[in-house]
Amino acid sequence: MQTFSIQEIVQASRRVKPFIHHTPIVSSSLLNQWLGHDIFFKAECLQKIGAFKMRGATNFIARSIEEGRRPKRIVANSSGNHAQAVALAASLFDIPATIFTTESVSPVKAAATEYYGAELRKFPTRPEADQAAQEAQTEAGTVWIPPFNHYDVMAGQGTAAYEALTELGEVDAVFAPCGGGGLVSGTLVASRALSPQAQVVGCEPVAANDAARSRRSGKIESLDGPPATIADGVATPSLGDLTFPLVQQLDDFIEVEEAHIIYWAQWLQHLLKLHVEPTSAMCMQGVVQWLKQQESSSRKRILVILSGGNIAEKTSRQIWQDDHLSQLPSL
Amino acid sequence: MQTFSIQEIVQASRRVKPFIHHTPIVSSSLLNQWLGHDIFFKAECLQKIGAFKMRGATNFIARSIEEGRRPKRIVANSSGNHAQAVALAASLFDIPATIFTTESVSPVKAAATEYYGAELRKFPTRPEADQAAQEAQTEAGTVWIPPFNHYDVMAGQGTAAYEALTELGEVDAVFAPCGGGGLVSGTLVASRALSPQAQVVGCEPVAANDAARSRRSGKIESLDGPPATIADGVATPSLGDLTFPLVQQLDDFIEVEEAHIIYWAQWLQHLLKLHVEPTSAMCMQGVVQWLKQQESSSRKRILVILSGGNIAEKTSRQIWQDDHLSQLPSL
Repeated sequence: MQTFSIQEIVQASRRVKPFIHHTPIVSSSLLNQWLGHDIFFKAECLQKIGAFKMRGATNFIARSIEEGRRPKRIVANSSGNHAQAVALAASLFDIPATIFTTESVSPVKAAATEYYGAELRKFPTRPEADQAAQEAQTEAGTVWIPPFNHYDVMAGQGTAAYEALTELGEVDAVFAPCGGGGLVSGTLVASRALSPQAQVVGCEPVAANDAARSRRSGKIESLDGPPATIADGVATPSLGDLTFPLVQQLDDFIEVEEAHIIYWAQWLQHLLKLHVEPTSAMCMQGVVQWLKQQESSSRKRILVILSGGNIAEKTSRQIWQDDHLSQLPSL
Repeated sequence: MQTFSIQEIVQASRRVKPFIHHTPIVSSSLLNQWLGHDIFFKAECLQKIGAFKMRGATNFIARSIEEGRRPKRIVANSSGNHAQAVALAASLFDIPATIFTTESVSPVKAAATEYYGAELRKFPTRPEADQAAQEAQTEAGTVWIPPFNHYDVMAGQGTAAYEALTELGEVDAVFAPCGGGGLVSGTLVASRALSPQAQVVGCEPVAANDAARSRRSGKIESLDGPPATIADGVATPSLGDLTFPLVQQLDDFIEVEEAHIIYWAQWLQHLLKLHVEPTSAMCMQGVVQWLKQQESSSRKRILVILSGGNIAEKTSRQIWQDDHLSQLPSL
């Protein structure tokens, strides 16, 4: 039986190390001055393929090989960061990969996925792509890598917080965005081990709050349809049966309005000089709301996992539509 | 008599080292694959204050102190990166600084300058601000730091290329943007010493081509008025008498159209995940045009100095107005 504890993350960290970037932790002294707290950003936007997803996909494959279950072919269905992560991770282990996606995939994502050596199979609709992926994995030796609901993927994603906390030592709080729950689950387990006093907080758009609703109802709730959020990295319809119990254990969970996501996307790009995607910027509003709830005003040390930096061109246009830089951040 | 050779840059490098960031060199494997060459970006957008200007201001002050000419007060007139560089550099040496600027300075720039501890004096117009700065420097012990036309500033700016080439070894070409000519002058001298075979190339917007015209006419030409370019970092009206002779020695000089500046601003932000300002992105079009002129198609190693990452909110809006990510880069 598989388990999920800090041991899995320590093992994952050892496994993925040769294949991923050790991303930097960055800060803005200006932001820290304005808020009166120290905020450390783990810059996974500088990770290979531009997102933390590289960690989970790499750990999944590396563990399979380590345990003598080397896949003959790898398949995944995604139009986003997971597809690119699987494509690149598979190529690093010289395993052929096929990505099942829709015909609407952007040329730049398609080009990147193919550059990483994967075959890209496009279908008119998402259900058709999912169906084809499901059929493909019935072939002997073909392995499907799930986007979040698997302990090896969750452990891989947890290596980002593990790396960061190994460098930073203990902190008062750790923030991560929550889509399917893979990143936030791994972050929780890593944080409990390396910074046991830290509050671990998940963040989600109000407009895609299936995880918040699941925490309230005690069962996995789903979005009714594609959510109207700029934070496309967390537009996942529902948590998985492995991630949900961990999401329930988070110390706090904050739902963020679209306007605040956009505000922080502008500000974090400006202050950090990094191409921070809305999904990551969202957490900064979580930090502000959490800080306002704290009784003690003592200076806090806060870790934020900046999950990625892959921003569609039309999303960048949305981010910069109005001026938010004239309104300085404060608590 | 002051001179300007690699010795000054080596000295500057030693002087500024404790006060500045050693910025990373970044690459995009995808871009390198598409173009068939290896392009190395020196990420001065991750420098303190978000631009290379920190190097020149720091070297200027550090050298004054080293030679027993410690300023009692430092003044500068700028509404851009130079103001913030002087403000921060002065504070690092515990010297009071006053920045003369216009009332139209953006709140975020004003807040940053004041956070660095400088007094900000605002005037209705730029000539009034310049006049006040000129008067201020007549006081005993008050020193004005020029934005580019000074060997200590030029040597400081040259430390970016010096650092990069020390790491990279020899390259085939080095690209830098040209405004007042401080960065490109320092880059030329550093490159001649560390990579003598390298072509050193300056880049300028067609819409602000005073330096290109100066190279053609053999005397310093000025812009007629504020230029219509998105590359605000190189909107300087003219070269200085110290930078002009060095700009004349550049191996090539490329004038870039606005549409190409915007194209590369989108692409470099996307590929490098860095907040690259248009002035820096401009050089990538210079690289493409230069590569097309080369007779041999052998794989080239190219260094590009990404000068900074300070982008006004309305400039970001301009950058992302149209979609360029659907058109993949190629030669």
